[in-house]
Amino acid sequence: MKLHILGCHSATPRSLVFPSSQVLEVGNESLLIDAGEGMQIQLRKYKHKFNKIQHIFVSHLHGDHFYGLVGFLSTLRLIGREKEMHIYAPADLEKAIKLLFEVTKTDINYPLFFHHLESNTPEMILDTEKFTVETIPLKHRIYTNGFLVKEKTAVRKLNIDAIKQHPEIGIWAYQNLKNGKDFEKESGEIIPNHELTLPPPRPKSYAYCSDTVYKPDICTQIQDVDLLYHEATFLEKNKDLAAKTLHSTAKQAAEIAKQAQAKKLVLGHFSSRYPDENQFKIEAGEIFKNVALAKEGKSFEI
Amino acid sequence: MKLHILGCHSATPRSLVFPSSQVLEVGNESLLIDAGEGMQIQLRKYKHKFNKIQHIFVSHLHGDHFYGLVGFLSTLRLIGREKEMHIYAPADLEKAIKLLFEVTKTDINYPLFFHHLESNTPEMILDTEKFTVETIPLKHRIYTNGFLVKEKTAVRKLNIDAIKQHPEIGIWAYQNLKNGKDFEKESGEIIPNHELTLPPPRPKSYAYCSDTVYKPDICTQIQDVDLLYHEATFLEKNKDLAAKTLHSTAKQAAEIAKQAQAKKLVLGHFSSRYPDENQFKIEAGEIFKNVALAKEGKSFEI
Repeated sequence: MKLHILGCHSATPRSLVFPSSQVLEVGNESLLIDAGEGMQIQLRKYKHKFNKIQHIFVSHLHGDHFYGLVGFLSTLRLIGREKEMHIYAPADLEKAIKLLFEVTKTDINYPLFFHHLESNTPEMILDTEKFTVETIPLKHRIYTNGFLVKEKTAVRKLNIDAIKQHPEIGIWAYQNLKNGKDFEKESGEIIPNHELTLPPPRPKSYAYCSDTVYKPDICTQIQDVDLLYHEATFLEKNKDLAAKTLHSTAKQAAEIAKQAQAKKLVLGHFSSRYPDENQFKIEAGEIFKNVALAKEGKSFEI
Repeated sequence: MKLHILGCHSATPRSLVFPSSQVLEVGNESLLIDAGEGMQIQLRKYKHKFNKIQHIFVSHLHGDHFYGLVGFLSTLRLIGREKEMHIYAPADLEKAIKLLFEVTKTDINYPLFFHHLESNTPEMILDTEKFTVETIPLKHRIYTNGFLVKEKTAVRKLNIDAIKQHPEIGIWAYQNLKNGKDFEKESGEIIPNHELTLPPPRPKSYAYCSDTVYKPDICTQIQDVDLLYHEATFLEKNKDLAAKTLHSTAKQAAEIAKQAQAKKLVLGHFSSRYPDENQFKIEAGEIFKNVALAKEGKSFEI
């Protein structure tokens, strides 16, 4: 998995930055998580293929998380998209997007599906061959979900050197070996699977938590996550503001990472009130060691 | 008057450019004409003061002309705007923006007025002390207006050298002089206004025509305009496409400029299919001499 930041700032009245949007590469797909204004321009800038995106996840219906969506969907029509597009978002999004299509007389001619998020408990919303996506119920001023993406255990890797010792094992047998089956020779002799294959790589996981007030009860669900992206709109000196607006501080984000025993924490959704974003890293670093700041155009290998 | 281009490309599936949006400085105001996605980022980039904008004109409800509007209006709330904002647009825009405010639970707390454009004949939609704005009915796939901005004749300029010859003319008399009145001495002697003042500068005018098919009947209304911005989505070699999509070619835009006897033509709304935009200038230049290409960040003194 690889995470690419397109935008990572809060609705920013003051500076020249892009609001929340990111691409997660997993399996052979690119998942789009949140879609702030200008997202399609960022996708082009960082050379993400539009056609690899088939699933879009919208955390909540504040403008800085979805105002780039309708323009992107319209562009897909212009470039002749044929593949399905699935959008996972609070129910009102469909109403809003459809009204915009109506007033602009836009006829979307590729299959577009809206999946309404309404649950207040974690819900599996996508289950593919290679990964799953679950909602992480968050608490903000409006109905909000984070998203937990988990790779499935991959198939075992062929140990080609070991296999070559047995000329009777043809390519036709490889899929069964990958799936963990032993090999049975014509003589009836069994070669145990572990002599012919190597264990698969450990499946990785990613959690996106934005926007939310400090909500430690999510730690059970995201326990041991490889990468946690958690909002840090404010610094601890403005924790009253964080509480009032239902956002988190850098310290609180680090507390979540620590309790969840995440491998790494990426902070984002910075308020533009702070001229020095490095303060977020310093503050979180006192609680949790492996912390990085999100930045437009930056990528994180998971 | 001064025109500033924020974005000047058609809904562009291929390249890293901004859709239609521009600022016209006139009097002491900044008029915003069209509001494509990312417009507020462009306003910041080119250092336009948000607070000088009180009037926004939307030509038509295709996304590349207004998808930046709702984010901008939301930002104004965040920065504590108190001044009125007036939006002149096809009626459905109000419905769309208000639904977006509703689903995002955005409470706009400054005075926001929607003025519905519905007429198919030219209509005076704004009349201030220093300028007027009229619609220019255009023909596109959806109800569309251009906008004609005309400065009013300014007051006469004081001829301070001449005034100083007459100590009895106090500052109290200046406004009457500017308004063209003669000065009457206590003795009853009349000093004619033209001996004390200079003629005002010639009022300038600007016409924005985008999007539209070739529509020469607009030339009467925009006759002698100082600057004409006219869309040129296509080159003449694709005039069949222009006709089909109700857009114009560079040559057709030049024909309009020529028939309207415009002082200068600026072309914009380029399709991204052409790698060399200079072809637009060459093609138009064969019909009309004083032609320039719009470009993000470029300004035109009128």
